Amino acid sequence: MRATLLTAPHEISITEVDFPTVQNPGDAVVTITATCVCGSDLWNYRGIRQIAQPQLTGHEFCGVVTEVGDEVTTVKVGDFVVSPFNTSCGECAHCLAGMHSSCAHKEVFAMGCQTEAVRVPYADGTLVATPEPPAPELIPSLLACSDVMATGWHAAVSAGVREGSTVAVVGDGAVGLCGVLAARQLGASRIIAMSRHADRQALAREFGATDVIEERGAEGAARVLELTDGVGADAVIEAVGTIEALQQAGACARPGATIGYVGVPVGVELALDPFFRRNIGLRGGMAPVRAYLPLLMDLVLTGKINPGKVFDMTLPLDQVAEGYAAMDERRAIKVLLEP
Amino acid sequence: MRATLLTAPHEISITEVDFPTVQNPGDAVVTITATCVCGSDLWNYRGIRQIAQPQLTGHEFCGVVTEVGDEVTTVKVGDFVVSPFNTSCGECAHCLAGMHSSCAHKEVFAMGCQTEAVRVPYADGTLVATPEPPAPELIPSLLACSDVMATGWHAAVSAGVREGSTVAVVGDGAVGLCGVLAARQLGASRIIAMSRHADRQALAREFGATDVIEERGAEGAARVLELTDGVGADAVIEAVGTIEALQQAGACARPGATIGYVGVPVGVELALDPFFRRNIGLRGGMAPVRAYLPLLMDLVLTGKINPGKVFDMTLPLDQVAEGYAAMDERRAIKVLLEP
Repeated sequence: MRATLLTAPHEISITEVDFPTVQNPGDAVVTITATCVCGSDLWNYRGIRQIAQPQLTGHEFCGVVTEVGDEVTTVKVGDFVVSPFNTSCGECAHCLAGMHSSCAHKEVFAMGCQTEAVRVPYADGTLVATPEPPAPELIPSLLACSDVMATGWHAAVSAGVREGSTVAVVGDGAVGLCGVLAARQLGASRIIAMSRHADRQALAREFGATDVIEERGAEGAARVLELTDGVGADAVIEAVGTIEALQQAGACARPGATIGYVGVPVGVELALDPFFRRNIGLRGGMAPVRAYLPLLMDLVLTGKINPGKVFDMTLPLDQVAEGYAAMDERRAIKVLLEP
Repeated sequence: MRATLLTAPHEISITEVDFPTVQNPGDAVVTITATCVCGSDLWNYRGIRQIAQPQLTGHEFCGVVTEVGDEVTTVKVGDFVVSPFNTSCGECAHCLAGMHSSCAHKEVFAMGCQTEAVRVPYADGTLVATPEPPAPELIPSLLACSDVMATGWHAAVSAGVREGSTVAVVGDGAVGLCGVLAARQLGASRIIAMSRHADRQALAREFGATDVIEERGAEGAARVLELTDGVGADAVIEAVGTIEALQQAGACARPGATIGYVGVPVGVELALDPFFRRNIGLRGGMAPVRAYLPLLMDLVLTGKINPGKVFDMTLPLDQVAEGYAAMDERRAIKVLLEP
């Protein structure tokens, strides 16, 4: 079958690999209906993070179960399932505490998911099936629950967004936009999206943003203070991961607020003093997607959220190189791939 | 009257200043019953933080109201009061949200509190009076509520300590020890104090520590993991403020846990990646003492907590130089001064 291989910065191509099979009694094999390109895939693509050898890529997918091991009980052949970006056993202390992204038996999909089928270890603790086959138009939104929607949700939950909150959102990529959607669902009454791209501003408003600020850094924070009578935001979502974005998030926050940060802070060393002086908390990290997945899938299936709108480009898997290029060049927010 | 003056590193002496009087209608004057030396006073004393000119010192006190301005309504002459280490108006958005340490009208006691009397602006929003004059043996515990007990409490609250939590406490100074006491009050069932000083270990156990670990850094964290079946602590209190202490706190925490940090992180630039990967949160900062003061004073007056035990040396104000030296040389945990 076809799979996506990164061989060097900006060198993405289709390669042939064996169709996966069940190896252990807890495995399932999922034939992929839709997969996609993640902002974090771009680190390797851009050479920011060096790869030691050619790498099979991708970690987001949904699809149909085509084989299960003898011990699998919660999904069966024919089920439509969504997978988090890592496996989880569902039984260790971390999974039981809802921290599936730190599962003691965590595995990443080393064979990549921008492909036709995936072997899923710990299928019972990892996959979530829909009650019935979903309507085709729901596929993008279900796929988004595999990572970006769950990550935006994690940011909002980590930031302590609740009924009536004023929330600032730093970052207008797919995760930041899903953070807007999450904040709305969690009852925020005011959501200030920080974005300077018209298409993303429009989607932010559609997802529930009440205000859009184009300024960045100290200027952006000053605008948030202006909009909040000098107080600052009750909660801040940070979905970029750079030191500038974290500082901007801190400056937007009111004293005592928490930043829910989900942008991977690669190499960031943060001066804590300004956060300490104003009691600005920092919570977040790799989202425990599995913990949120049943709720998020239900919100999608009942039409309450439509995070699939972050996919503004859909390509056949064979054109994966164009998908990476479009995201790299910011021609697309997020690219869906159909095998 | 006498006041304490820092003129250069390790140069502390008694000087003469005017007895304070009411300047504004919201002021009160408090004649001090007890004051003390804070770990943070040592930064200037040690020359870690340079002072530009001679400085009147101290920020913790309790005492008796001896004059009030015309607009003061919540305390009256003769009341015994405890003061937070900063003033607060009680009416701005930050005070109303319980973040009094970020009060829009915040003032620090620039004239110092290691003295005989203090003028307190915003007396209504700042001071809390006891229902009746307290028994003399309660004075140290009431004084502790002015800073260290409230700061330890803030750490425990920020870390999310609750009924049944396993809590690790990094730092065995007065604040760390008060953090142990706070964790116990908040229902923690296991409290692991990290200390290598016999006297502090003993007080930690008296305050509610169930385990004491002498190892530091990665070794200390490994011991915490051993004690928690490899899981880590549900909540961590960090009461030091160095990068080593923060890293140690992070390594002790279970995935998804929050570090309540109250050690001032002077100059700390923290690499966030290890925290992000395991979803370790950081919350805390300058404690909003006023928010906790009524509760803490009640716990003291009803005999439920006795944080005054952190004072293991009491000196007359005239011997303030010895008080600083004893804390600097770690001969005392915390020094109480009697004017």
